[in-house]
Amino acid sequence: MREAYQSKLEELADELADMCGVVGTAMRKATQALLEANLALAQEVISEATRVDELRDRAEKDAFALLALQAPVATDLRVVVSSIHVTGDLKRMGDLALHVARAARRRHPASVLPEEVKPYFAEMGRVACALAEKAAEVIRTRDVARAKELDSDDDAMDDLHRHMFTMLMGPKWTHGVSAAVDATLLARFYERYGDHAVAVARRTIYVVTGHMPTPLEV
Amino acid sequence: MREAYQSKLEELADELADMCGVVGTAMRKATQALLEANLALAQEVISEATRVDELRDRAEKDAFALLALQAPVATDLRVVVSSIHVTGDLKRMGDLALHVARAARRRHPASVLPEEVKPYFAEMGRVACALAEKAAEVIRTRDVARAKELDSDDDAMDDLHRHMFTMLMGPKWTHGVSAAVDATLLARFYERYGDHAVAVARRTIYVVTGHMPTPLEV
Repeated sequence: MREAYQSKLEELADELADMCGVVGTAMRKATQALLEANLALAQEVISEATRVDELRDRAEKDAFALLALQAPVATDLRVVVSSIHVTGDLKRMGDLALHVARAARRRHPASVLPEEVKPYFAEMGRVACALAEKAAEVIRTRDVARAKELDSDDDAMDDLHRHMFTMLMGPKWTHGVSAAVDATLLARFYERYGDHAVAVARRTIYVVTGHMPTPLEV
Repeated sequence: MREAYQSKLEELADELADMCGVVGTAMRKATQALLEANLALAQEVISEATRVDELRDRAEKDAFALLALQAPVATDLRVVVSSIHVTGDLKRMGDLALHVARAARRRHPASVLPEEVKPYFAEMGRVACALAEKAAEVIRTRDVARAKELDSDDDAMDDLHRHMFTMLMGPKWTHGVSAAVDATLLARFYERYGDHAVAVARRTIYVVTGHMPTPLEV
C-alpha cells in the first residue's frame, strides 16, 4: 500500500516532467515555424496542442485521487498541491506555444517578422526551450540549486523582451504598425512562457524547503 | 469539529470572493487612471497590489490546512482543489490590473491612449469589472447558471479586443507605432483578465457538477 502510494507520487512527477517536455517541443517547433514561415510545422503544433490538455487532465485527476485516497501530509501534501499549480503553468506554456504557431499560420506565406528582428526571436525561442528543459529536470530531481538557476536564466528573456520594445518604439523601425503589433504580442508570449517556467521551478523549491521564494515580479 | 470544518470551508470561499472584489476594484481604479492619466490613482493601485498577494497567501495556507487536517473528500475536496486553481487566476487578475496602472504611470503626464480609442478601453474596463463582480457572486453562491453566463459575458470583451486590432492595423491609425504597441498590450491585459474571470466561474461549475466545462479557447 505504502509502496503503491510512493509510486503514485513519482508517477505524478513524471507526468508533469513529460508535460514540460511536450510544451518545450511545442515551443521549439512553433519558433521554427515562425522564423521559417513554415506552415506544415505550425499546423503540427496546432494539432498536437490537445496532447497538453490530455496530460493536464490526467495529472489533475491523479493529484485529486492521491488527495482523496491517501490524504497525504507534510512534504507529500506539498508535492501534490504544487503539482496542481504546476499543471496550470504548464498548460499556459502550451497555450503560448500555440499562439506562436497560430501567428505563423495567420500570416503565411508571408513572414510575421521582419528579417532584422528574427535573431532576437530565435534567441527568445532558444531561452524558452532551455527553461522548459531545466524545469523538467527540476521536477524530476527536486534539485533546489538548479531550480534557483531558472530565475537568472529568465533574466536573458527579460532583456530580450525589453530590447524588442526599444527596437519597436525606436526611430529605426520602418516596418509599420501592423508588424509592430505582431512583434509586440509575440515577444510577450515568449516572456510569459519564461515566467511560467520560473514559476514551476519556484513550486519545486517550495516542495523541498516548505517556503515559497519571494514573489515573481511580472 | 464537523461544524468548525464547514465554517473553514465557507471561510475559504469568502476569502476567494474578497480577493475577487479586490482585483475588481484594482481594475476599476486602474482603468480610470489610464483614461484620465491620473497618476495618484495609478500609484494607489500599485501600492495596494500587495493586498492581493496577502489574500492569495492566506487562501493558499487555509486550503493547505484543510487538506492536511481534514482530508476532505467528494464535493468538499473539489472545493479545496478548485480554490487552489482559483487563487492562481485571481492573483493573475491582480497582476493585470497592476500592469494597466503601471502603463498609466509610465506615460504620465501624457495619456497612454489616443482619444479615439478611449471609449473602447472604458468599455473593456467596464466588462472586466462586471466579470470580476459576477465571479465573486458565483464563488459565494455556487450558482451554476450564473457561472455559465460569464462565458457569454466575456464574448463582449473578445469582440472589443478584436475590434481594437482592426483599428490598430487599419489605414486610419495615425498615432504611430509607439501608441499602437501600448494599446496592443493594454488590450491584451483586459482580454486576459476576462479569461481568468471565466476560468474562476468554470472551476465553480466543476465544484458543483464534478465536470469541467469544455476547455477555454484562448
